[in-house]
Amino acid sequence: MTDSTAPAAAAAAPKPYSPGLEGVVAAETALGYVDGEAGQLLYRGYRIGDLVEHGTYPSVANLLWTGDWDPRHHLPTSAVPESVLVALRALPRTAKPMDALRTAVSVWGATQELAWPPTPEQARALTAFSPSALAAFARLRVGREPVAPDPELDLVPGFLYQLNGERADDATARALDAYFIVGAEHGLNASTFAARVITSTRSDIASAVTGAIGALKGPLHGGAPSEVVEQIHEVTSPADAERWVRETLARGDRLMGFGHRVYRAYDPRAKALRKVAESMAHKPEWLELAIAVEDVALRVLAEKHPDRPLKTNVEFYAAPVLMGVGLTPDLFPATFALARHAGWTAHVIEQASANRIIRPDAIYTGPAERDLPA
Amino acid sequence: MTDSTAPAAAAAAPKPYSPGLEGVVAAETALGYVDGEAGQLLYRGYRIGDLVEHGTYPSVANLLWTGDWDPRHHLPTSAVPESVLVALRALPRTAKPMDALRTAVSVWGATQELAWPPTPEQARALTAFSPSALAAFARLRVGREPVAPDPELDLVPGFLYQLNGERADDATARALDAYFIVGAEHGLNASTFAARVITSTRSDIASAVTGAIGALKGPLHGGAPSEVVEQIHEVTSPADAERWVRETLARGDRLMGFGHRVYRAYDPRAKALRKVAESMAHKPEWLELAIAVEDVALRVLAEKHPDRPLKTNVEFYAAPVLMGVGLTPDLFPATFALARHAGWTAHVIEQASANRIIRPDAIYTGPAERDLPA
Repeated sequence: MTDSTAPAAAAAAPKPYSPGLEGVVAAETALGYVDGEAGQLLYRGYRIGDLVEHGTYPSVANLLWTGDWDPRHHLPTSAVPESVLVALRALPRTAKPMDALRTAVSVWGATQELAWPPTPEQARALTAFSPSALAAFARLRVGREPVAPDPELDLVPGFLYQLNGERADDATARALDAYFIVGAEHGLNASTFAARVITSTRSDIASAVTGAIGALKGPLHGGAPSEVVEQIHEVTSPADAERWVRETLARGDRLMGFGHRVYRAYDPRAKALRKVAESMAHKPEWLELAIAVEDVALRVLAEKHPDRPLKTNVEFYAAPVLMGVGLTPDLFPATFALARHAGWTAHVIEQASANRIIRPDAIYTGPAERDLPA
Repeated sequence: MTDSTAPAAAAAAPKPYSPGLEGVVAAETALGYVDGEAGQLLYRGYRIGDLVEHGTYPSVANLLWTGDWDPRHHLPTSAVPESVLVALRALPRTAKPMDALRTAVSVWGATQELAWPPTPEQARALTAFSPSALAAFARLRVGREPVAPDPELDLVPGFLYQLNGERADDATARALDAYFIVGAEHGLNASTFAARVITSTRSDIASAVTGAIGALKGPLHGGAPSEVVEQIHEVTSPADAERWVRETLARGDRLMGFGHRVYRAYDPRAKALRKVAESMAHKPEWLELAIAVEDVALRVLAEKHPDRPLKTNVEFYAAPVLMGVGLTPDLFPATFALARHAGWTAHVIEQASANRIIRPDAIYTGPAERDLPA
């Protein structure tokens, strides 16, 4: 019980308080760089568009963990330990996939020797495990048996294989791989910060990622690609897009998938995803609709708010990609969590490499010292 | 994928950076107040010593959740859902109790409807569940069957009953109840902060506590009452205490259980625990040793470092209390986690009541924009 609290409560002088720690620097990182004005996202200096064009998710994950660029880096999914399968089978079929994934990572951690400090090998093992576990739960909840990993397949096609029981075509796997790359890392968001806080106590990588999954589960963070899906469902055909966009805005409703807290320019992740999606030989109907809606929406939004730049964000293209590869909307947040494993675990390694326990102060706003009621 | 990162990376002007967020205010709280100089700890204004003397853990937990003081508030442990038992049975017997508890809370969360915002009812349900789950794992790992809760017993005697299969005597239960009270809350430490970060995304109370358990698992936070046990093991009798203390210090070794980052005065939690321990009718040998070692150690430390106040901390008396009630040292951190449930869940409720997503900035220290190697 080496406990450890805010001596701030005791200090007389008021300290500056920035709710949500907005504008407060909480870490140094060499992993992700986001320039919202320029619409730029770099991983260790490399542009996200280049990484999607020339890399795969395993090569990008390896870059984040080690700093080395090897576009042929291979990482298959790994087998799910029996104790994890038992736990997943025992969950209610109605359990949220994020709860199942959080549980799977927790059980996995209980079966491993995770010595301090966390290493790229630990990161690799956990990142290879989680897709298998999520695929297993996705099958179990509909009464199907899990599928064992295919060691020949790389992580993302391997995940699709374990999810569907058959190999995906190359274009489909490539589209989801691009989604995994653009979702891999994005600086110090709430889930990544949770992972760093947990790591800062010298806890293990499974504890950190369990906490990060819990944070990503929150709708203020894990987001709403499924809301994009619901909206685009209302559009009957590409030719119908203009009518639908104008009516939606006239009702005062928001167009989901546009605008971002950080990006003022076109979200570089959306750009990379659209490029991959457009190159698909057989575009799913979803994607045709999305492209039509985006083109109309950007034109209409610019007409209505010429002074306010409202650009497509990554969710807009995440939705058609995830639908296109056969994922149901309730699997979207957990699939995002799989993609973010690379970044979370890289931040865990980085935090450990120059560690200091993260223990901010609090302002005490409660009652002054008093006696218990008689 | 409502992602959300550090625009700091993009900002030109350097921001102040306080590693570990030391001295940075990250929350307002009306729950715990710590005055390290005066050796004072208040929960909602009430002195920790008074709460131990007049309250029970359920009454203190209820105070933290609701602000109301009812010394007769009753909270029995609750039954462990079948899916949790299945998961615990499937864990390796060598799994760390903290990993088992983290997993149990995660599975529990997957079986519940935990609507936003988190409520005292949710806090109560989770706090009543976890002792049953830890007791179940502690039995399963030695080949014994779990014991169902006894609804007549309050939370702490109920935990002991489920752990040992028989009711504890009043003095034993009272000693552990005091430990639970002093461990219930301590401001914005790393695990509590992790719980608030996770909650700030509007995630659920089980996700928050799962992350907090993961943070408490780290040795920089969860601490080392078991190291106190190991040291006191070296003392053969109260009469031997002086020799042992002097030899240990002469070798340059640290005396475990003395000194605290925040408290310069005698830790008020240690004081309350010693008082309860001393009132036990049949003091276990452990406790006699601990009292003898403390008395000698304080005298010798004051002799050696008259200018440096090195006082007993809570771990020093936590160790004999936990040993005295029959807990093995490898259960100490998870038992601390049970006690801290009241504080964690109270902070979760408080965070949700005036929520803002916790999303600090980072300083980017990696390579500038560059092309991929050819």
